[in-house]
Amino acid sequence: MSGSGADRIGMKHGAGGRAMRELIERVFVGRFDPDPRATVGLDAMDDGAAIRLGDRWLVITTDSHVVHPIFFPGGDIGRLAICGTVNDLAMMGAPEVLGLTCAVIVEEGFPASDLERVQESMQAACREASACVLTGDTKVMGRREIDGLVLNTTGVALADRIVTDRGLRPGDAILVTGPIADHGLAILAARHGLSLEGDLVSDVAPLNGLVRAALAAGGDSIVAMKDPTRGGVASALHEMAAKSGVGVVVDERAVPLRAAARAAAELVGVDPLHVANEGKALVGVRAEAADRVLEAIRAHPLGKEAAIIGRASAERPGGVILDTGVGRRLLAEPIGELMPRIC
Amino acid sequence: MSGSGADRIGMKHGAGGRAMRELIERVFVGRFDPDPRATVGLDAMDDGAAIRLGDRWLVITTDSHVVHPIFFPGGDIGRLAICGTVNDLAMMGAPEVLGLTCAVIVEEGFPASDLERVQESMQAACREASACVLTGDTKVMGRREIDGLVLNTTGVALADRIVTDRGLRPGDAILVTGPIADHGLAILAARHGLSLEGDLVSDVAPLNGLVRAALAAGGDSIVAMKDPTRGGVASALHEMAAKSGVGVVVDERAVPLRAAARAAAELVGVDPLHVANEGKALVGVRAEAADRVLEAIRAHPLGKEAAIIGRASAERPGGVILDTGVGRRLLAEPIGELMPRIC
Repeated sequence: MSGSGADRIGMKHGAGGRAMRELIERVFVGRFDPDPRATVGLDAMDDGAAIRLGDRWLVITTDSHVVHPIFFPGGDIGRLAICGTVNDLAMMGAPEVLGLTCAVIVEEGFPASDLERVQESMQAACREASACVLTGDTKVMGRREIDGLVLNTTGVALADRIVTDRGLRPGDAILVTGPIADHGLAILAARHGLSLEGDLVSDVAPLNGLVRAALAAGGDSIVAMKDPTRGGVASALHEMAAKSGVGVVVDERAVPLRAAARAAAELVGVDPLHVANEGKALVGVRAEAADRVLEAIRAHPLGKEAAIIGRASAERPGGVILDTGVGRRLLAEPIGELMPRIC
Repeated sequence: MSGSGADRIGMKHGAGGRAMRELIERVFVGRFDPDPRATVGLDAMDDGAAIRLGDRWLVITTDSHVVHPIFFPGGDIGRLAICGTVNDLAMMGAPEVLGLTCAVIVEEGFPASDLERVQESMQAACREASACVLTGDTKVMGRREIDGLVLNTTGVALADRIVTDRGLRPGDAILVTGPIADHGLAILAARHGLSLEGDLVSDVAPLNGLVRAALAAGGDSIVAMKDPTRGGVASALHEMAAKSGVGVVVDERAVPLRAAARAAAELVGVDPLHVANEGKALVGVRAEAADRVLEAIRAHPLGKEAAIIGRASAERPGGVILDTGVGRRLLAEPIGELMPRIC
């Protein structure tokens, strides 16, 4: 956005990386009056906001979903919308959903049967997450004014304790709840008709049950959570490191990755650490509780392949260091567009 | 959506009338599991939902905004988004906003300066409404995948008492808080470059201060509220009548209408009762409190031209009867597309 030429929005501004963060900071975060009542407000740029309500917190989060294609291996835009919002609440330490909203924007001429299919998928995801849609909105735009279907879901929840993305201290363990990069690569394969689709399906799933189990096992020892969506694990770890004021060292060989995802990533030449997930969480845990929390997560159906992939360090605050087993290098923060409309 | 030919979404399905209601009922309302904890849930199809929280209610509402053009006389999409959501909360009896979310979807190539202008407008409206944006989301879609800029705002509020759109009883007075049809006609004039723009500007404004004053004066005597947005006063009254199981008789000569709006409506051949408003409310009040509430609303800067325009009746439940002064006729419920993308 800086300097030369036309000052216009580019695809990189929606990609979950540094360019998006800079745009949001410039246009929105610094310009809205902060809410003095918010424990976690807009300026935190966390997965959602938290505001004190009696002796608890009301957590609120919003996401628009523009994924293309609408139907993809392992899910669709409806499942993505419900899970994305449920997961953002869970990442704030609020796995019990109070309610969801669903706003639909649809293109004139869109098949009604596809809308019904998306609704069914939303309903199924709601049941998995023990969540209900409380209210909604419907808008229609003309042909070629919007590409098919866009959804917005907002969620509210109550929490006894807030977990942010900035609570890491040197020595804390960092867990990932399962194999990475499946969502982004499944979308990429679907979009470009890659023949390797095979068992490459999106991981899109509601994580609130898993988070509930982790919090029950870990309690106050769970100090940071984030779901590595746009920008992948690399972007999420960079954000956690920078906000916490610590470095993060990742053991590359410990990061779970399915063979199909590894093959697809190699074929298209992307780093799986930069690829979006929609059913995984990064969990920062005090070292002494790490094994206990790992065990609790592995006992959950969505966490069987969870692993400790790294730790927070006093070294290089804000940086993410990748230990490849043969050496160490800085893991770059994604700047912009790896894949547009991934979620 | 019924019967012959292609079962596809049409512009009428976003127009706030009967076709939209039927689509929503068919695809969404009847298909999502209802939340047993909700006092006002999805099936109510009210301005928002209400869920019990201790001895109060949490009210939540969501709206996407697709107005075209983005900047129009009297406002822009940013002001519309904040006011629309604040007003929906207020219509539920919850004028004290706990917080708002703001999700932005922007087209690649959109001028950053326009985005900043929209943000400034949102911030100004937030101050008028004593509301804060707590959290947000940003997505970018490619060129020609979305027309410029779309916003979603969701709002939450706490209320001691819920006001729905279905509380009318025969004999209740119906007030409107000021002159109607300004918003829709201002958009229409801007879109088609009509030269009559003159003092025809949108009424878009946050009504929560006015509603606070009305509730303070009327208390439990205020039994129904609704803001006549898409589909105008006609559509809102039809909904209130049908849900309340009463008829509504409107005194056409009592309905406030500015000269500029009257002239524009005549020129383009639309009934002002069918045109969208973004800064007006319909308020149903027990007859004995009507004058007191009218006085309180008129004392508010946004309610100076408020008027009692009709009353609920036992006659023709679900119907709206227009008394023109020379006779009475049924006021039709809008079915579909008067003007697309009006909000």
